[in-house]
Amino acid sequence: METNAKVREAAETIDALITPSLLLDRGRLERNIQRLAGNAGKLGVVLRPHMKTAKSIDVARHVFPREPGPITVSTIAEAEYFAGHGFRDMTYAVGMSPASATRAMELCRRTGVDLKLLLDTVEQADALADVRKTIGVTPSVFIELDCDDHRGGLKPDDPKLLEVANRVVASGANLVGVLAHAGESYGLSTSDALVEAAENERSTTVRAAETLRAHGHACPIVSLGSTPTAHFAQNLEGVTELRAGVYMFFDLVQHGVGVCAIDDIAISVLATVIGAKPEKGWVLVDAGWMALSRDRGTASQQLDQGYGVVCDETGRVIEDVVVAQASQEHGILAIRSGSGKSMPELPVGTRIRILPNHACAMAAQHDVYSVVNGESPEIEARWERIRGW
Amino acid sequence: METNAKVREAAETIDALITPSLLLDRGRLERNIQRLAGNAGKLGVVLRPHMKTAKSIDVARHVFPREPGPITVSTIAEAEYFAGHGFRDMTYAVGMSPASATRAMELCRRTGVDLKLLLDTVEQADALADVRKTIGVTPSVFIELDCDDHRGGLKPDDPKLLEVANRVVASGANLVGVLAHAGESYGLSTSDALVEAAENERSTTVRAAETLRAHGHACPIVSLGSTPTAHFAQNLEGVTELRAGVYMFFDLVQHGVGVCAIDDIAISVLATVIGAKPEKGWVLVDAGWMALSRDRGTASQQLDQGYGVVCDETGRVIEDVVVAQASQEHGILAIRSGSGKSMPELPVGTRIRILPNHACAMAAQHDVYSVVNGESPEIEARWERIRGW
Repeated sequence: METNAKVREAAETIDALITPSLLLDRGRLERNIQRLAGNAGKLGVVLRPHMKTAKSIDVARHVFPREPGPITVSTIAEAEYFAGHGFRDMTYAVGMSPASATRAMELCRRTGVDLKLLLDTVEQADALADVRKTIGVTPSVFIELDCDDHRGGLKPDDPKLLEVANRVVASGANLVGVLAHAGESYGLSTSDALVEAAENERSTTVRAAETLRAHGHACPIVSLGSTPTAHFAQNLEGVTELRAGVYMFFDLVQHGVGVCAIDDIAISVLATVIGAKPEKGWVLVDAGWMALSRDRGTASQQLDQGYGVVCDETGRVIEDVVVAQASQEHGILAIRSGSGKSMPELPVGTRIRILPNHACAMAAQHDVYSVVNGESPEIEARWERIRGW
Repeated sequence: METNAKVREAAETIDALITPSLLLDRGRLERNIQRLAGNAGKLGVVLRPHMKTAKSIDVARHVFPREPGPITVSTIAEAEYFAGHGFRDMTYAVGMSPASATRAMELCRRTGVDLKLLLDTVEQADALADVRKTIGVTPSVFIELDCDDHRGGLKPDDPKLLEVANRVVASGANLVGVLAHAGESYGLSTSDALVEAAENERSTTVRAAETLRAHGHACPIVSLGSTPTAHFAQNLEGVTELRAGVYMFFDLVQHGVGVCAIDDIAISVLATVIGAKPEKGWVLVDAGWMALSRDRGTASQQLDQGYGVVCDETGRVIEDVVVAQASQEHGILAIRSGSGKSMPELPVGTRIRILPNHACAMAAQHDVYSVVNGESPEIEARWERIRGW
């Protein structure tokens, strides 16, 4: 809203923000970025961060302070946005349709970027021949692999792997490599299991690349990644690049998996107390699922965090207080079940912060990050984010 | 996105839309609007539709084809937007904080609208005295009632009801009435239970109004409503107005409650097939939770609809096919468990429509409605919607 934006622009501290409002802690963001960049460096792979979580050029500039580097995107709209900000080397990590391939190649022709596509069927490869003819651009293509029965992709020993590779080449496209995503790693919670998932993701992907090379395909890029496996990989021999996105912000799901501490979580929603039901131990706030998202990713974890963990206005966790229920614009705070604690006094007008179950989903409910640092109420910057397709 | 908007403006039929894309069936919308308007007329109450679902001036103009009428809003941003389009009589149906009351009264002063506030504590009433002094506008206030232990509000027999009413008057605000919302009716599924919930909502609200009147408060407005009870109320004696929002679009949750037929659901997400896993009976589409929302409201109903019911491109339901899983930009279509059917052939590039679990949540993921009518692929109009606070 215009008025909203005006008030936000005027706000110099979070006390002046309209609630609910999305906060981003710069110190935590930078620490998270450095941690995975360090891992990738030690493991000898290129990091190709996924911009689907942040969707913000300002966050991307923190990842790449000197010049734009390789990135992953989840929509063509993101590709268009980052192309407009000078990014040249992108992977669209969603299986292509004829329509999305056409839009992607039009962007490549218009801006000169290299936007790599993903496919796993001969039908998609054949569709590329038409796109190539119509647009006059040679598509760069990954074959998508399935390392853990998560979603799409071919198993490395599937005979279709070679068939698809040959059809990609026949279509006149450039087969740049293979790509996997260990999406099932989100469901794990022990270090041993995560190390094993990372090694499985690696060995699957490298095996597919070797099969392709044995049949004359160069397969220069071997790409894999998920935030959990990216942090638990011990060895990435044969892999050339690592992808991850939610690691920049982290969230309660990643905390439950064991990838981050609560104090690493960089985004939260600032909310205001609007009522209470003392007889039920409830405090009502003006952040419901519209501000927090409907994500209940921790519901299947050992510690169910409701719709989010509650902190005081400075970001310090209020122990055992969670958002127990959420409707569109109402959140109900309550003590976590099983805790011996009682609900603290939170009078109407009190401000709190709520940590996300899932950072990608919470951030998507907002158009702007108010950037803060640590417990200071000062707003350092306002960073816009994009949405849509 | 700019490009997105350009392509969408150019699109004359849904075949040219970028997917995922939000569709709105005008015929169904009009039928749903007429149905509840008819109910309200028969029951002798004013209908004050809740704009939290549609958030669109074009939809509001279908509800009020002649001139702006009374509406309910869920955010001050909605109030600002509808005030800008000539709406004058609005209720902000979320408990006020000192900050939201200030913004609301600033809007009243600036535009001359009557934006009614909601409260249920003496602390909120006291805060209004300050707001009144600072802004120089007399706030209109509802006392929020709790008829079914859903969220906030006072029980009609709570002695605080009179205390709060007296403090509202003492603050210099205008006590316009009492307001209830039978939010627990969403969890019901039989006609008898819904009729009973509607009568309970009525009798609770009327009892509170009578108590207030017995103590000298005029209490001119007696307001209640939820989409289920609004459709099952048999008698609204003593009630002056009815509120509901999701009824304009309806959704699978409302279908599960028994309020609408599948063919009444007016919004859907158009999506494109991007792959398959035949060995698992999966078809992958380019609509994940970013386009559908994370809402799983049917999970607790008798018939779990996954992340939505799948229709063909013209809107005809493909029997027993649902979105079984969703990640950010991927949906996995599969046959509903327990069905004897097998998955139909849906080659890459095929387009489908997905009906929402929860219309408020699905619509919120999009910035524009592409308006269609029945099975015709023609796009009649593009209606924008707002978001934010």
